[in-house]
Amino acid sequence: MPLLIDAVRDYYDKLGVKLDPNDVLITTGGSEALLLTCLSILDPYTEVIVPEPYYPNYTTFVHAAGGRIRALPTCPEEGYRYAYRKRIESLITKNTRAILITNPGNPTGVVLDESEMRMIADIAKKHDLFLICDEVYREFCYDDKFGVPTMARFHDIDENLVIIDSVSKRFSACGARVGCVVTKNKELQQALLKFCQSRLAVASIDQVGAAALYSVDHEFFRQSKAEYRCRRDTVVSKLRQIPGVLVEEPMGAFYVMASLPVDDADKFQRWLLESFEDNGETVMFAPGAPFYETPGKGVNEVRIAYVLKQDQLERAMDILAEGIRRYQLEVMEQ
Amino acid sequence: MPLLIDAVRDYYDKLGVKLDPNDVLITTGGSEALLLTCLSILDPYTEVIVPEPYYPNYTTFVHAAGGRIRALPTCPEEGYRYAYRKRIESLITKNTRAILITNPGNPTGVVLDESEMRMIADIAKKHDLFLICDEVYREFCYDDKFGVPTMARFHDIDENLVIIDSVSKRFSACGARVGCVVTKNKELQQALLKFCQSRLAVASIDQVGAAALYSVDHEFFRQSKAEYRCRRDTVVSKLRQIPGVLVEEPMGAFYVMASLPVDDADKFQRWLLESFEDNGETVMFAPGAPFYETPGKGVNEVRIAYVLKQDQLERAMDILAEGIRRYQLEVMEQ
Repeated sequence: MPLLIDAVRDYYDKLGVKLDPNDVLITTGGSEALLLTCLSILDPYTEVIVPEPYYPNYTTFVHAAGGRIRALPTCPEEGYRYAYRKRIESLITKNTRAILITNPGNPTGVVLDESEMRMIADIAKKHDLFLICDEVYREFCYDDKFGVPTMARFHDIDENLVIIDSVSKRFSACGARVGCVVTKNKELQQALLKFCQSRLAVASIDQVGAAALYSVDHEFFRQSKAEYRCRRDTVVSKLRQIPGVLVEEPMGAFYVMASLPVDDADKFQRWLLESFEDNGETVMFAPGAPFYETPGKGVNEVRIAYVLKQDQLERAMDILAEGIRRYQLEVMEQ
Repeated sequence: MPLLIDAVRDYYDKLGVKLDPNDVLITTGGSEALLLTCLSILDPYTEVIVPEPYYPNYTTFVHAAGGRIRALPTCPEEGYRYAYRKRIESLITKNTRAILITNPGNPTGVVLDESEMRMIADIAKKHDLFLICDEVYREFCYDDKFGVPTMARFHDIDENLVIIDSVSKRFSACGARVGCVVTKNKELQQALLKFCQSRLAVASIDQVGAAALYSVDHEFFRQSKAEYRCRRDTVVSKLRQIPGVLVEEPMGAFYVMASLPVDDADKFQRWLLESFEDNGETVMFAPGAPFYETPGKGVNEVRIAYVLKQDQLERAMDILAEGIRRYQLEVMEQ
């Protein structure tokens, strides 16, 4: 059985990225990888640019280090794409320390193409910022043109780049709480190592299990991706049949963000749970507003995680359609 | 199999402490319990009073939250005892947020008696400070008068008290990385919960295993304590036979702090590893200075962890005695 750190290095080697042992710090999930990165690079009142909507726990990690999030706005009409140089550079101030992106994206499913990745890498380099790239959904890209994307192939930004990684999505092992930070920046490695040493180690048995997971062959990823692609297609086609829903086909991860024809997705969700049923069943999604830093945004948006089996997903989307219809009639019309 | 949180509550119930489910937050070891507590209660430039010598990782957790440690000095001549009201109160300023103690103590093995615990509880209450009590060595008290000590029995300080706990010492399960914060302060519970939610969960399989560990009966602790008491007696009696060593019998945990007749314990340790051998063997301890906040203190002190088996411990102490003799002759005399 290989050590986890060696299993991780072998995995990156297959992606075309050579890592020294010091370049990898094993963490208690991607969550700790993010927290320790924020504690290492942020000071009070420094800023991190993050495209919104974004994974809400980023806020806690940035705030824990005294930092602030500067939201890079996107909109459903543009499919939540955020790789626009002028918009990004307009947010950079003397307090900016990092750009934090999730690629493929949670909650949007946006995947950057090669030129967009390169452009964002160039911005980080030009402005001497850390580029924190949360790539935990790397294997889940539904167009073959993306391959298995990683910023780590851009060696000219080695000093800027911090990769956040995890086994939880890659191997459906979220309960294992095993992730890592990958960086070649020696000063950052030293700061991260101090935090890692202070909390001693990641759970032993989970590290052994995670190391074994890395031995699965390519066929596992092919099947896993094919299954999620089917689920995505089901959800998107079902959503498009609902009048008034605005949705772009997500290219990666296993989420889709959609704008619903309701006044308030949070209120609608409560109503679905408390006042609605369709043959004794209802549905639950994540209301959109908490994914935004900007107050008032995302109010009628939702994030749907397509992690159910096909038949359950189909049924769930039918319930959602019926829920929207009845909510419009019974609540919004009043 | 009970849920871990219920197993923890049952365990505290047997100590005479009734806990609601909200009073317990399961953490990735006592380390995360400490980090999240510091992040929850400290702001930049606020202070925590900690008796020195103390577990060096406290520094990282306090600094991560922007706080500072105010060291409460002790000395080997007084057996590292720190429960002196005037000395403690003299360190309290408007920036003080908490008193942090380890009871039983690491690295000193000091155990507070009932009246000392009460006095420190009274100080925290009088000055409206958090009392963070790291009780991970609770079961390791070698005088029956201490019983299984916990500050949690003082219900009048429920608003002040934060207990740091862990399975790692209690059940010799340090690789499991399972601990908890216990507090009845609702505001603190809310702050801790936000951090806990942001990092999702503690590793699942380790929680299941830890819950099972709590089902061991009293006999396990009796045997475990008896074994460590023998080891302590061996180490202390052997240390007392070495000319120039200053050592008090530790009353708890599984460490002893001793002052050695050497110029610099760190230099001596390096020499033991690099230039000394006795029949091909040498010994390793933790040099004392890193356990102190105050520069220059602990230079000739060491922490010995008596976690080896009896015969190995005896041999190790003989090697240490021989090492000191030869170091004094070969290095210090020059």
